Amino acid sequence: MQTPQINGQRLWDSLMEMAQHGATPKGGVCRLALTDVDKAARDLFVQWCEAAGCTVSVDQMGNIFGRREGRDPSRPPIIMGSHIDSQPTGGRFDGIYGVLAGLEVIRTLNDAGIETEAAVEVSAWTNEEGSRFAPAMVSSGVFAGVFDLDYGLSRTALDGVTLGDELTRIGYAGDVPVGGRPVGAFFEAHIEQGPILEDEGITIGVVTDAQGQRWYEVTFTGQEAHAGPTPMPSRRDALLGAARVVDAVNRIGMTHQPNACATVGLMQVFPNSRNVIPGRVFFTIDLRHPNDDVLRQMDAELRAALAEISEGIGLQMDFEEIWYSPPVHFDDACIAAVRGAAESAGYSHRDIVSGAGHDACYIARVAPTSMVFIPCTGGISHNELEDTTPEWVTAGGQVLFQAVLERAMATAG
Amino acid sequence: MQTPQINGQRLWDSLMEMAQHGATPKGGVCRLALTDVDKAARDLFVQWCEAAGCTVSVDQMGNIFGRREGRDPSRPPIIMGSHIDSQPTGGRFDGIYGVLAGLEVIRTLNDAGIETEAAVEVSAWTNEEGSRFAPAMVSSGVFAGVFDLDYGLSRTALDGVTLGDELTRIGYAGDVPVGGRPVGAFFEAHIEQGPILEDEGITIGVVTDAQGQRWYEVTFTGQEAHAGPTPMPSRRDALLGAARVVDAVNRIGMTHQPNACATVGLMQVFPNSRNVIPGRVFFTIDLRHPNDDVLRQMDAELRAALAEISEGIGLQMDFEEIWYSPPVHFDDACIAAVRGAAESAGYSHRDIVSGAGHDACYIARVAPTSMVFIPCTGGISHNELEDTTPEWVTAGGQVLFQAVLERAMATAG
Repeated sequence: MQTPQINGQRLWDSLMEMAQHGATPKGGVCRLALTDVDKAARDLFVQWCEAAGCTVSVDQMGNIFGRREGRDPSRPPIIMGSHIDSQPTGGRFDGIYGVLAGLEVIRTLNDAGIETEAAVEVSAWTNEEGSRFAPAMVSSGVFAGVFDLDYGLSRTALDGVTLGDELTRIGYAGDVPVGGRPVGAFFEAHIEQGPILEDEGITIGVVTDAQGQRWYEVTFTGQEAHAGPTPMPSRRDALLGAARVVDAVNRIGMTHQPNACATVGLMQVFPNSRNVIPGRVFFTIDLRHPNDDVLRQMDAELRAALAEISEGIGLQMDFEEIWYSPPVHFDDACIAAVRGAAESAGYSHRDIVSGAGHDACYIARVAPTSMVFIPCTGGISHNELEDTTPEWVTAGGQVLFQAVLERAMATAG
Repeated sequence: MQTPQINGQRLWDSLMEMAQHGATPKGGVCRLALTDVDKAARDLFVQWCEAAGCTVSVDQMGNIFGRREGRDPSRPPIIMGSHIDSQPTGGRFDGIYGVLAGLEVIRTLNDAGIETEAAVEVSAWTNEEGSRFAPAMVSSGVFAGVFDLDYGLSRTALDGVTLGDELTRIGYAGDVPVGGRPVGAFFEAHIEQGPILEDEGITIGVVTDAQGQRWYEVTFTGQEAHAGPTPMPSRRDALLGAARVVDAVNRIGMTHQPNACATVGLMQVFPNSRNVIPGRVFFTIDLRHPNDDVLRQMDAELRAALAEISEGIGLQMDFEEIWYSPPVHFDDACIAAVRGAAESAGYSHRDIVSGAGHDACYIARVAPTSMVFIPCTGGISHNELEDTTPEWVTAGGQVLFQAVLERAMATAG
């Protein structure tokens, strides 16, 4: 049989239609998890799954599965997918590409009239970004047993609403238990979100590993006071402390190059008035490294810096590590399936380590897993300017198709 | 005639009643300019002025004047007053003390049946704090010709609404022209907002001067990107730049001790998401010094630091000095009136330089002016914990009464 080819134009058109939900004036997407625009995008995805003949189910974390049955019901499904939610100023491809590439695989199986041995499912995981409800990847985490269901549903946005409340509000609080079922393999297609593939002129990233991550929340409390008559030496300025931590976090990241990342992305200042010394600052820290020992060293350096800075200014510190996701090595057979698909489809490829967390990192704990990366323009993502090309989109979809087909047709071990 | 004594209990009770408007659970006040609670407090002040027999007028900037006529209509009025608005997490005395002490002076004149030569007025100046509409002291500034009326009315809050719109909304867009009339003298009673009087066990501060101030607004624009896969060396992190400026501002203040103050009080981070490198940060800077030459030197150091930091990270900078208020030396005769009143009332006193800006700093440009300071507990203000004592409140009111009486009775020069 000649290898069927996915319909790249159809995949691109679906991406562009989906990007209307939450479209921003700058060409990006604001589709925060479980908002009305996220609901509208979910509805469209469900509609497309049903049109492709899939049976759609929604679990208690709002994860959506569109299932195309296989010949042998005793074999666990091969699942593809990623997420529909975006950053507040996100792009048109992060997450949704992996969902719609999975849908395109099913559409292509339909077009070619292929009956797979195992069922094939396309999935959309709730609240991957973690920007509305921390931490990230929380629903694939519940699926994989990293978090329990109560923890997942009780995640709370800055405005006080919980993830569970919002699932109910938009009608995506399903009744299917989360996880606890066998998965034959999981594949996630995604834009690289970094510059390596484009810089090297390579089309496909065969993802072998993902960086470990540690997320923290810090509140510094000092003394609110008038910015005029309060002498500098007697101040306890919470923002001065937070500012020194931002610089220290950057220094920690630079110390462990080439692979470390260290970021303060969110900061809230109270009372946030021009002529008041800030009495309280809340901020977050994100540390990443592919080597767990180095990540542990970065954690130790962070804790030392926080203690030294807060003591130096006389600030009270509330500090919590809210999330630890260890480095992941993906499944060698799944990696080989992706690499083999890129080879046989004739695309240039290289092995690559994911700098970002992905739903695949958690699913890897309960199923053989790997990922397919395609380049994104300028390496930019989590930005409204995030972009890629129809050619790259097609290439990644074709590699996903062939890797999934290999696993879904393979004789049961 | 024996010197009449103000009714300290009545003044304290008025302060406590007024503090109900915008009262916070921590015992402070949130009475941002031209909000509904500011309107309610204004209404109460107007009601009290009318009950004291005053004629009330409101000018085009919403400044309120309660006038008690004198014997000689050819003499310009002696005006007392301060402001009703507060910081977002402010105290029960900052501003409102000077307004209600002025009202108490008028009530005491009534009780004693004194007819002054010049009229006596109590005033409340709109939006002194500058925390809802920058800059601070904008309406006394228009009165004094520092700003024109259009500038004043077009000041815009962070949510986009203008000062003029809000005046109209709450019914305080008066029709009296702002300023342009002779003022015999202006006196403002205020808490010190610093620790000096309390530390030295002194009851009355005779305010001879006020620090100069420079206010700035800065926007750093870098490159929003994913906090995971974006290599540290290629980042343009706007928050890293802002953090380094916070530290540099603090260093500039510490370099010019004992009198310099340098503060970053307000910062907004975009998009403010944990795993996104901040692409844009808006923040403010407040520099103060009683010596204009030193203040100019601090300004030069700030500009050098901003240029070096933004270039080092590759950030685009939008920088504006939005306000410059030079150091003020108050009127020697008015200072002498305050000092003499403290002497004859038997209170300990010392000369003092105001670290904060006050409406008096602008009115000083068009009228002989001075101020009366009383201690505040722990030197703390712009804080819900701001506090003072009934004894200090009474002392300041009595000094204000005697200084005003001297000026209002004095034979015209």
